[in-house]
Amino acid sequence: MPRINEAFLNLRASYLFAEVKRRTQAHRDAHPGVRLIDLGIGDVTLPLPEVVVQALVDAAREQARAETLKGYGPYVGYEFLRAEIAAHDFGARGVKLGPDEVFVSDGGKSDAANIQELFAQDAVVALMDPAYPVYADANVMAGRSGPAEASGRYPGFVYLPCTAENDFQPALPDRHVDLIYLCYPNNPTGAVMTRAALKRWVDYARAQDAVIVYDAAYEAYIRDPELPHSIYEIEGAREVAIESRSFSKNAGFTGLRMAYTVVPREVQGRTAAGNAVSLNQLWLRRQSTKSNGPPYVIQRAAAEGLERAGLTVYGGRNAPYIWIRTPAGVSSWDFFDRLLAEANVVGVPGSGFGPSGEGYFRVTAFGSQADSAEAVERIASRLRGAG
Amino acid sequence: MPRINEAFLNLRASYLFAEVKRRTQAHRDAHPGVRLIDLGIGDVTLPLPEVVVQALVDAAREQARAETLKGYGPYVGYEFLRAEIAAHDFGARGVKLGPDEVFVSDGGKSDAANIQELFAQDAVVALMDPAYPVYADANVMAGRSGPAEASGRYPGFVYLPCTAENDFQPALPDRHVDLIYLCYPNNPTGAVMTRAALKRWVDYARAQDAVIVYDAAYEAYIRDPELPHSIYEIEGAREVAIESRSFSKNAGFTGLRMAYTVVPREVQGRTAAGNAVSLNQLWLRRQSTKSNGPPYVIQRAAAEGLERAGLTVYGGRNAPYIWIRTPAGVSSWDFFDRLLAEANVVGVPGSGFGPSGEGYFRVTAFGSQADSAEAVERIASRLRGAG
Repeated sequence: MPRINEAFLNLRASYLFAEVKRRTQAHRDAHPGVRLIDLGIGDVTLPLPEVVVQALVDAAREQARAETLKGYGPYVGYEFLRAEIAAHDFGARGVKLGPDEVFVSDGGKSDAANIQELFAQDAVVALMDPAYPVYADANVMAGRSGPAEASGRYPGFVYLPCTAENDFQPALPDRHVDLIYLCYPNNPTGAVMTRAALKRWVDYARAQDAVIVYDAAYEAYIRDPELPHSIYEIEGAREVAIESRSFSKNAGFTGLRMAYTVVPREVQGRTAAGNAVSLNQLWLRRQSTKSNGPPYVIQRAAAEGLERAGLTVYGGRNAPYIWIRTPAGVSSWDFFDRLLAEANVVGVPGSGFGPSGEGYFRVTAFGSQADSAEAVERIASRLRGAG
Repeated sequence: MPRINEAFLNLRASYLFAEVKRRTQAHRDAHPGVRLIDLGIGDVTLPLPEVVVQALVDAAREQARAETLKGYGPYVGYEFLRAEIAAHDFGARGVKLGPDEVFVSDGGKSDAANIQELFAQDAVVALMDPAYPVYADANVMAGRSGPAEASGRYPGFVYLPCTAENDFQPALPDRHVDLIYLCYPNNPTGAVMTRAALKRWVDYARAQDAVIVYDAAYEAYIRDPELPHSIYEIEGAREVAIESRSFSKNAGFTGLRMAYTVVPREVQGRTAAGNAVSLNQLWLRRQSTKSNGPPYVIQRAAAEGLERAGLTVYGGRNAPYIWIRTPAGVSSWDFFDRLLAEANVVGVPGSGFGPSGEGYFRVTAFGSQADSAEAVERIASRLRGAG
């Protein structure tokens, strides 16, 4: 037997959402008659718009004729989509991007997991706590940490606590870091970041020679006109920021799989010898070598999905998540289990997003309005009764 | 600027197929009127079967209704597809696989690039030479080699030359290796491997505690009933082999993106301390953490595509590639450039697949029969006239 990548063994027992799925399924199997309200994984529930479905159907029909068949596409997305993203998602907000700065992929999850491959093994990674677990897990698998501590923290990372006490706004790191994962509007807390606050992060990254990986998967939920949608609305960000977006939440594409990452031409890394290297070119090489891009039919549907941006949402203002404190003395997973067993509501334990998420619980606002209302009532009665 | 993963800089200038695309496009731009015959990248040219297109359309229509909408799917593929793959592609040939041993993904390229993540940094990698470049490139990016030598070889790898002199059958490595990439039917040489020859490799892997990554992307081209389609037809392979297949060539899915990798429950790696670790579980964790699986609509189409296996092919017996010697003294890239400039035929330089590919040239048999015949005539006249 060959020796394995032992960094995998440093991961906590199971990928958070896989564990939530497992416990939910066990509950379903044990209670087949029960009407479960699932506000756990943030998934779509409304049908796709007809224009998107029609684009899918039309693109599928093109595959039935040799003249319109599409085989291998460009590794980083079709030009028609990259150009439209640049114009629609950024140009409309005054941010100028070239199509060659937009890299289309099959999901925000893949991009969040893969971007770390561009950086040195000893890169110091800063993570919001709590945060989407993929940022930490991918860096653990890459060997940038040892095993998780009892607290759930990985010793290799610089954690930036986001709690009620600091209004879920992380402080700047108190030591040098190389790579900073920021997510706004935030998953899981639903917090947003003002233009001034984001400017401080860009300035920090410039001063520290760091790169910000800005996850803007939930940008379509922003309602407040003062909030920035893209980090590139902040002066100086093109030199230090990579931004990811997803069609999953903006256009209901969780099942269709489509996302993109922007790597500006200006953002650079360096070799040990001090030579500058374009991260845009490294990412192009990474994606060209390891991927063939998402399916043509999905990219066609995505182009239509872009036009539909501005969907109707319920729940958290500017973000599709509600972040709830569990009753005193009740851990996140205990609350998950109790809510599932007693109220038949599925959420996600806050501790799964990081140690500072312990004592919190996330519910999505992706469910139907009626379901959300009923779930909130069920949860509220537990919160009143418990602890 | 943070320090980059300098292993990227060890890669040769450009991903092979990206460079072929670039030179082809430049030629197209310079000669807009010319009818180019493209036998370079092995892409499909025939329309998809109507049943596949209809499955795509039906699945797309399901997304227009809340009751049949599919959001996030299982990270490693829907059960309906995993079970059908196990039954159709393996059960029918007497190979018993569980659905939990089949991991559906968005492409053979991704799987070929990602599987190395499971292994230790100092794993010794054996590569057929020539070979599909992704095997080497992914391992280079992971830091398992230094910069390419002048010969094009990476010093970190054990190369297994496959040339006309050894009938394109690699000899067993003369030193210990941990990970062996084998591809049969072979890309690019079109060679096949008999049951007896494959048995030697399985026995070697068992004796050496190595793992074989068996790329069977072109299995559907096998016509000789004596040849094995799957490595699991060989006794003892379940303990030492991972097998990848692609819908790209079997079902014309280059544009739809679908593949799968089989990781049997028995195949294991070990920790430095000597404890056995299930590679099936490691791959499950890797895929769960870094991917959300391919789109539902594509998986539905793939289930139909399975039924259509047994397509009509032209060209190389048992394999869709023809491997041609270039004229004496003419390098692979020189031949590429001359063929493009003088005959308007695109192939792929053999040297791009490894140093032992120098002096060879690959053309695919995926083009239409008429195009192939014309291209062969154009190439033959160059071979006669040149050198």
